[in-house]
Amino acid sequence: MPRYELFYWSGIQGRGEFVRLAFEEGGAKYIDVARGPAGDDAIVAMMGGKGGGPRPFAPPFLRVGRLVIAQTANILQYLGPRLRLVPADEPSRLAAHQHQLTIADFVVEIHDTHHPLGPTLYYEDQKQAARRRAAEFVKQRMPRFLGYFEAILGDNRRGKGRHAVGGALTYVDLSLFQIMEGLAYAFPRSLARMRRRIPKLAALRDAVAARPRIAAYLASPRRIPFNEAGIFRHYPELDPPR
Amino acid sequence: MPRYELFYWSGIQGRGEFVRLAFEEGGAKYIDVARGPAGDDAIVAMMGGKGGGPRPFAPPFLRVGRLVIAQTANILQYLGPRLRLVPADEPSRLAAHQHQLTIADFVVEIHDTHHPLGPTLYYEDQKQAARRRAAEFVKQRMPRFLGYFEAILGDNRRGKGRHAVGGALTYVDLSLFQIMEGLAYAFPRSLARMRRRIPKLAALRDAVAARPRIAAYLASPRRIPFNEAGIFRHYPELDPPR
Repeated sequence: MPRYELFYWSGIQGRGEFVRLAFEEGGAKYIDVARGPAGDDAIVAMMGGKGGGPRPFAPPFLRVGRLVIAQTANILQYLGPRLRLVPADEPSRLAAHQHQLTIADFVVEIHDTHHPLGPTLYYEDQKQAARRRAAEFVKQRMPRFLGYFEAILGDNRRGKGRHAVGGALTYVDLSLFQIMEGLAYAFPRSLARMRRRIPKLAALRDAVAARPRIAAYLASPRRIPFNEAGIFRHYPELDPPR
Repeated sequence: MPRYELFYWSGIQGRGEFVRLAFEEGGAKYIDVARGPAGDDAIVAMMGGKGGGPRPFAPPFLRVGRLVIAQTANILQYLGPRLRLVPADEPSRLAAHQHQLTIADFVVEIHDTHHPLGPTLYYEDQKQAARRRAAEFVKQRMPRFLGYFEAILGDNRRGKGRHAVGGALTYVDLSLFQIMEGLAYAFPRSLARMRRRIPKLAALRDAVAARPRIAAYLASPRRIPFNEAGIFRHYPELDPPR
């Protein structure tokens, strides 16, 4: 197996977590570069064009030999076949990548609940706008995205309601697990209210958490706890009681 | 050549335009379904699961025979080799897709200047927040993204500063043209102020506009004019005079 180097901020799960989950389930050896002696400075240097090839706009990115690959969904598309986390046929790979990109869109909307005025201002400077955006999010957008993925699990007959693509686990299932975990952390009340409408997603979350490699990972120090610097932040004022 | 059917809202350029530009430059025959007798209802039916395969979350999506492919960057990745709009080697294809995904991220931030509180409210109901978000956007985010793509054009030696990937035109160049056109429409004053810092992007915009197939397309009724229902909206109050 090649030497995989993952570059992602050392203090948060963030978008890097979707890649970490694939590495862990795939049994890959990988180096989480910024959590080693190089620290976050290694990321900044690569973004400044020190890595050869097209520089990344932002982490996560992956270095494999001389290749540098950025953008979460692009990385997962590259790793999928190599870690046996996607079927071999083209329609399945297109579907998996399509779902991963829709998950990426969802992640932006989740992030923007606490940063509606953009990533250049602190949460504390946009709390009022965050309340309005979060209210629309939990009322409309979260049900829409989760309802969509629930329907996707139903559409995929080969997966028997348990997998988003094909008849076995893919990186998309791992990412849906992460979405469910993150929403349970950030919006526990809102998610609880709609859990009955998304039984397949809830079961998928439990099934992924129980997989031996994932369970071992989640119990290890390699799993960074959720915190208020990442995508999924628990600000009770953004999660209405009803 | 197969029969390509593009599904996108009939009244706006939107994200569909990145696909239309690829079809036009690639000389493909394609049907812009919703602009025909079927109208936008055809899109809604497919999103409801009437198309077979995994339903799309949102347009644009493409139907090719029995295959339905959603997500703009996924569609362009599929079409790239078929329309000769991407080099054959894997590093180039990964780089092209990476750039397209960064363009997609930029498009979200451009859209959110007029919809900071989310897509479920009208602009008129979020004008104050839009002013704050747009101010940060033109001051910080637009220069950061455009500066990044200017650097990418410089990094790619084979393109001699004229192409984002490899030595010839790719779908990424077409998308960068669309970004420059859209920003010139939506933020003419802010773009004018930074034009001297992005000479390669400005030249790329001119070179793409002058390509015979693109020039013919832009002059045709197939090109929907920019308007205030799309991604790039000209609201003078969001484009500060200095």
